[in-house]
This record gives sequence, structure tokens and C-alpha cells, in this order.
Amino acid sequence: MAYPGFGGWFGNFSGQIPGMQVGQPVPGTCPPLLAGGPPGYTAYSHSSDPMWTYFTAVAGQDGEVDAEELQMCLTQSGISGTYSPFSLETCRIMIAMLDRDYTGKMGFSEFKELWAALNAWKQNFMAIDEDRSGTVEHHELSQAIAVMGYRLSPQTLHAIVKRYSKNGRIFFDDYVACCVKLRALTDFFRRRDHLHQGFVNFIYEDFLQGTMMI
Amino acid sequence: MAYPGFGGWFGNFSGQIPGMQVGQPVPGTCPPLLAGGPPGYTAYSHSSDPMWTYFTAVAGQDGEVDAEELQMCLTQSGISGTYSPFSLETCRIMIAMLDRDYTGKMGFSEFKELWAALNAWKQNFMAIDEDRSGTVEHHELSQAIAVMGYRLSPQTLHAIVKRYSKNGRIFFDDYVACCVKLRALTDFFRRRDHLHQGFVNFIYEDFLQGTMMI
Repeated sequence: MAYPGFGGWFGNFSGQIPGMQVGQPVPGTCPPLLAGGPPGYTAYSHSSDPMWTYFTAVAGQDGEVDAEELQMCLTQSGISGTYSPFSLETCRIMIAMLDRDYTGKMGFSEFKELWAALNAWKQNFMAIDEDRSGTVEHHELSQAIAVMGYRLSPQTLHAIVKRYSKNGRIFFDDYVACCVKLRALTDFFRRRDHLHQGFVNFIYEDFLQGTMMI
Repeated sequence: MAYPGFGGWFGNFSGQIPGMQVGQPVPGTCPPLLAGGPPGYTAYSHSSDPMWTYFTAVAGQDGEVDAEELQMCLTQSGISGTYSPFSLETCRIMIAMLDRDYTGKMGFSEFKELWAALNAWKQNFMAIDEDRSGTVEHHELSQAIAVMGYRLSPQTLHAIVKRYSKNGRIFFDDYVACCVKLRALTDFFRRRDHLHQGFVNFIYEDFLQGTMMI
């Protein structure tokens, strides 16, 4: 089974975004590049990476960020642009999306992976939100989900879109939350579908452990 | 398999709360009882129910509330007491917990079911939060989950508690969100575990439909 959300460019975290190197921040949203990290870090491999600045500012000695630190990091980076900063809840599921060992934290390589995905989702949202109202319509999120490669029934799509809307519209934070959950839940399912047949036999605790995080 | 969260008094929505009738609001948090609903409603069976007041004030002509209306309804009812009102995200999963036909809305009977559960969870939270700081500690949420009947490994419990904490503590809104998700995900799983053996063979779309809502 070819899983949805893995072939589309903004559903595929390992792929590059058209016209943009993976890890390259959105132009105009970045502070000046600082060389290297704080004292004590072996930052040689990251010294030329602008995201290293955001990350090390909040990661602390353990070199990882939790959900509150991620929220601070993303807010300070200005990645949301003119849209509202990400809620703590959305940051929690962002952590869960890449946190396969359930530490509740994210290292720098995962942060870069997330950054690339966020930029791609933001570009897509901006392409739909032509009048820069900060929201998109139900059918626009449905179409975006379909473009990502998720083949879902109209009933499922309708229910999902309604779940992530507010007063009949979808805000950027909820749009990203929806994309993150679709990706994280699909990834959780796919890792257990060893034969790629589209069904998995879940034991209760494993099911609960994964889905409670996301 | 005897499922967790169904035997404990605050995990079991159909059971009564000790010392309290199901549907009875927390003393001191209710506005004066109004007889009946707005014109046009056949409110005979609900006219003596104080919750009917909160519900009909926001439900409108369709007689159901969506997540935004539920948030308004719960805030106005004062059910959170001295704790912060419920976030929209928590209200969304409250809807999902009882919304088995995926309409994204809740009728009055489900609202009563929710109300009883919320009162029970609130009483439990207050019993743990002895100093009324508004937060409880990690091990206290772990213990509460165990008391509800969920038999989970220490690793799973640790990951869940961390996921719902903020700056190392658990706030009332997150505590309820955790209880709602545990209950909703268990219910979703249990409904498919026809032989009650503790494992379910999920088809991808069904898995995604249920877990994306919760």
C-alpha cells in the first residue's frame, strides 16, 4: 500500500520543497545569522545553519526542546508570519509527530525536519488564503488534504474539516494542527503495517500510547 | 477483556457520582432555574432540569451545540469554578467523545452525560489539588489514571502525563483533556473489539477517522 501524505511535497518531510532547500527559513522572517552556538556546544556542523540560532536559544544543556520551548522557539523565529503564533497544543503534537521514543522532546535534526514541513504547509496555506484573511474555507482544506495524497471518503473529509474549524473557517494554527495529526497518525499506523496492506492489528496499550500523544 | 475507565466512578459516565445525582450541577455554580426552554421547544421533560437553561441558551433551533457553543455554555455555567475555563481544543474533544455519528455536535442527552463526567473529574482534581494552586503534580495524574482503572506500563503513563503537563505541572483544563481522550480513545477501540480480547484489526481510514476527531 502506498501511504498517503508521503508522496505529496508538503506531506513528505524528507523531500525538498520546490524552490527551497530543506531547512531554509522563509525569507524575511529570520534574525541575523549567528555563527555557532553557545559555549560548550560542539556546533561545528551547525554553525552555518540559521535555525541553530533559534534552537540553541531555548534548548538548554540537554540540546532538546519540549513543547513549551518549541512554542517559544517558533514564536521568536516568526515562522507564522502575519498569522497567529502556534498554540501550545499544536506544539505538543508537533513534538509527538517526531518523538518516536516518547521523550516528549525534540532534537535539532527533528527541529529541522519540522521547520521544513512548517514552511511547506505555510506556503500552501498562503496560496489558498489569497486575501490574507488568516482563514481558509472548508472545501479548501478538503482539497489540500486530497492534494497531500490522503484518499478519504467525503464523510471522513467532512468530519475532519469540521473538527479543525472555528466559526465555519479554518485558521492557520488549526490548519497546521490538522496536517501534523494526519501525518503523525499515518506514520504511527504505517510503522505497524509491516506488509503495507492498509490494516493493522493493534494491542490496546500500544494503540493508546500512540494516539494519546498525538 | 474488562476495559479500563469503565468501572471507576469517574471513568464511568453512566454511573452515578457518589453523593450526587447524575446531572446535578455543582452547588453554588448555577444560575436560578428557569422553567422550560425558549418558545417552540417541547421542553416538558426538561423543564425541571437546571442544565436545560445553559444548554438552550446556546443550542439554537437545531437543539445541538458545536464546540464553540459548548465552550460558551460551559464557561457561562461556571463549572470550572476557580479554575480557568475550558479551551476550545478541550471542548472539541469533549464533543468527539460522545459524537458517534461524526456530526461535530452534541444534543442535550449527551450534554448531560458530559456534565456528569465533568463534575466527577472536577471533584477528583480538587481532591488532589489540596492547596488550590490550580495544578497537580505528575505522579498525582498517574495515580488518578490508575484509579480510573487504566492498567498501563510505567513508560506509557510517564509519556501520557508529560504530554498533558505545562512547566512540569498539570492544569485543570489539561487534566480534563487527558481524561476525555483516555475515555474517548478507549471507547473508540472497545466498540471495535467485538470479542473483548484487547486487540483490534483497524483499516486505515477507520483508524484515521476516529483518531483525527479525538
